[in-house]
Amino acid sequence: MSMRIAVLGAGPSGLAMLRAIDSLRRQGHPVPEVVCYEKQSDLGGMWNYTWRTGLDAYGEPVHGSMYRYLWSNGPKEALEFSDYSFEEHFGHPIASYPPRAVLRDYIMGRIERSGLREQIRFNMAVHWVQRDADSGRFQVTVRDMKADTLITEEFDHVIVATGHFSTPNVPYFEGLEQFPGRVLHAHDFRDACEFTDKDLLLVGSSYSAEDIGTQCYKYGARSVTFSYRSRPMGYQWPSSFEEKPLLLRMEGNTAHFSDGSSKDVDAVVLCTGYRHHFPFLPDELTLRTHNRLYPGQLYKGVVFIDDPGLIYLGMQDQYYTFNMFDAQAWLARDLLMGRLPLPDKAAMQADSEHWQQREQACSNADQEIDFQAAYVRDLVDASDYPDFPIEQVAEIFKQWKRDKKRDILGYRDQRYRSVLTGTLAPAHHTPWMKALDDSLEAFLHEPAPAAKRA
Amino acid sequence: MSMRIAVLGAGPSGLAMLRAIDSLRRQGHPVPEVVCYEKQSDLGGMWNYTWRTGLDAYGEPVHGSMYRYLWSNGPKEALEFSDYSFEEHFGHPIASYPPRAVLRDYIMGRIERSGLREQIRFNMAVHWVQRDADSGRFQVTVRDMKADTLITEEFDHVIVATGHFSTPNVPYFEGLEQFPGRVLHAHDFRDACEFTDKDLLLVGSSYSAEDIGTQCYKYGARSVTFSYRSRPMGYQWPSSFEEKPLLLRMEGNTAHFSDGSSKDVDAVVLCTGYRHHFPFLPDELTLRTHNRLYPGQLYKGVVFIDDPGLIYLGMQDQYYTFNMFDAQAWLARDLLMGRLPLPDKAAMQADSEHWQQREQACSNADQEIDFQAAYVRDLVDASDYPDFPIEQVAEIFKQWKRDKKRDILGYRDQRYRSVLTGTLAPAHHTPWMKALDDSLEAFLHEPAPAAKRA
Repeated sequence: MSMRIAVLGAGPSGLAMLRAIDSLRRQGHPVPEVVCYEKQSDLGGMWNYTWRTGLDAYGEPVHGSMYRYLWSNGPKEALEFSDYSFEEHFGHPIASYPPRAVLRDYIMGRIERSGLREQIRFNMAVHWVQRDADSGRFQVTVRDMKADTLITEEFDHVIVATGHFSTPNVPYFEGLEQFPGRVLHAHDFRDACEFTDKDLLLVGSSYSAEDIGTQCYKYGARSVTFSYRSRPMGYQWPSSFEEKPLLLRMEGNTAHFSDGSSKDVDAVVLCTGYRHHFPFLPDELTLRTHNRLYPGQLYKGVVFIDDPGLIYLGMQDQYYTFNMFDAQAWLARDLLMGRLPLPDKAAMQADSEHWQQREQACSNADQEIDFQAAYVRDLVDASDYPDFPIEQVAEIFKQWKRDKKRDILGYRDQRYRSVLTGTLAPAHHTPWMKALDDSLEAFLHEPAPAAKRA
Repeated sequence: MSMRIAVLGAGPSGLAMLRAIDSLRRQGHPVPEVVCYEKQSDLGGMWNYTWRTGLDAYGEPVHGSMYRYLWSNGPKEALEFSDYSFEEHFGHPIASYPPRAVLRDYIMGRIERSGLREQIRFNMAVHWVQRDADSGRFQVTVRDMKADTLITEEFDHVIVATGHFSTPNVPYFEGLEQFPGRVLHAHDFRDACEFTDKDLLLVGSSYSAEDIGTQCYKYGARSVTFSYRSRPMGYQWPSSFEEKPLLLRMEGNTAHFSDGSSKDVDAVVLCTGYRHHFPFLPDELTLRTHNRLYPGQLYKGVVFIDDPGLIYLGMQDQYYTFNMFDAQAWLARDLLMGRLPLPDKAAMQADSEHWQQREQACSNADQEIDFQAAYVRDLVDASDYPDFPIEQVAEIFKQWKRDKKRDILGYRDQRYRSVLTGTLAPAHHTPWMKALDDSLEAFLHEPAPAAKRA
């Protein structure tokens, strides 16, 4: 079979595509040749922590937005691969909220055991993708970062799996250029210890603000002030926290808010979200969307309707994550390989609009969770991705929401039951608020008394 | 005349090219059509301060490496445009070491008074440049950042004036990923107030280290430790400064050096230089050089020998700056327009190698200064850029070196004589170490007693 597929990015979405095609190969089917281009020097995408910010060692934008001491902000039981459980990977049950290094180990383990690493070309930044006028195939140009040369190869299909939490959305607020201290976007946040004993302003009211705020509190920030545009998060914050309405301007180190109040702060963290950004694509192949559960222009959330040879994975706002990317990859594989029929453009458009209307009808988080569950159900039913109790996972998400509402600093101490193995997760040996060491070793092994932190 | 020239970047080098062509037009000559593409929303290049770091509002790498409270680190008498003196711009003599905003005002003034702003297309990031196989002309593709669309136009010549102090060179040191505090490259340094009362490690021994170190001291850093690879800077530092040999590794917040010593620090600033980086150029058009006084591949330091339709401006390591860029632009203009003959490739290569050999024979700063003076002399003599006492400027640079050696914290209080107007610069109203307000207004106007800082 001479079909060639380029996968752009070796994070959870890109790896899902490698795994999807490999699973077909293991069943004895002929499969396309796959080349996965990865800008970083290892697989895992965002889950590879980097101390770098801004530009990397080769002048390319740093992909990673994760930071030290980051723990999963959702229970692992909600993101388990249906073909590879946590218990299979670790050999025993683990607690529900692992730190980053543990989740990275899990994601990578499935790939390492499959021998798929050899399909990935590391230190290759995708530079440009275009349809060749003569061959009709995609020309993919990548920069070999170590050699600093450009390489072009042709493919029948391109899978965009570059994520959408890497290019920060950074609005301007009056006076930021005169603020006497650090101003950063959450994308560049790395170590909470920098902010010990500091008064912090966090602009934003979504996951980044919530998590960076609680983490800085955990590592000794003096106070945390959030600024929201629409509505406060409304959690039961510690007394050193405040939620303020929109930031109007900075004057020196004083933040002024739309309710007339003000607060002196030492640093400003813009937790203002990310942009879908595809600088390597021509206009006619570019997905243009904000962060939403069902971006337009995509059939089944993956096929680029204007050019169905192009696939986007993981471009949704996400409750479901790893298992949704898997389900997307399995379906995309079958559509590209002709194992499932691709409707005509009008039908794809109608289907996409139908889902977008359903999304718009959602008016609360539970409905959004059910919506995304229905979407994942649609994908899984159409492909041979191993079925899993998608709707039970939805209930886990709803419980997680309630747990957070009840105790924003303590929800990570909760335990959930795996929908795959039926095992109830054990309690972690240390409450999250006291767990300052986020290493895999510390998480997996009860520390000996002598090794415990003071 | 149908010749079209694309100028990439509206910083000092790009603006020099606009001015060079405009000066010919003012003499009544027909001139090419010029389009200048600028990523930022204003002209001035690096001299536009931005509070942003990493990626800008449109996901493009932030160009600026300058920081708040930055003052010129060389006397203004050494960088004066020979066709536009500081006195002409400000209407009266000013002190020798102005802050950033004052130099920006000067650079921009010459352009604003020429009406050249209309040649600049702002918020346009250069995406790709290539020779069109059919027309033989350059196709320049830019991203209209506000519209988020790509635009391609054809040109006969391309002037690369994008600078080489924007893409940081960021080496790895063992343990940086576990350092409990901020790690940044000088490119992302913005405000010294962030480091008040902190112990700083600055890795590097060139201008960035020297200037960021002294500035942080001025704004209250507790201590400054430099780490050098080859040799210490050797200035007479205050007692809270130390120069250490190469950083071997970080352990927690402890820096270990190659002499066996160590130091606990709160933040690490990598003052490790910049890379010549042209991600918008194909391999065959890319200048590959480190930071040196005479990069290879360039005839007269500007013409890309392998494709003489392509010009690079300002790619040298620099003593001379604005006036050298001017002299380069004037000469490049005449070569491109056929007003001066372009030798054959072998002759260009031989000329370039001759200069490179002269560069390599330099063994100290005075010789380097004389070398660059000779290079600028060569440019000015060949073109009609207004002659200026280049060799007198070289003596200013040598005096500046001596002044720094004598008093690294006080050298900016020295005064120099303009080689254009003969005026000796007045003393600034406030010694540099006490001048905490770096605004244009504060610099130009003696503050009223009541308005003085405590």
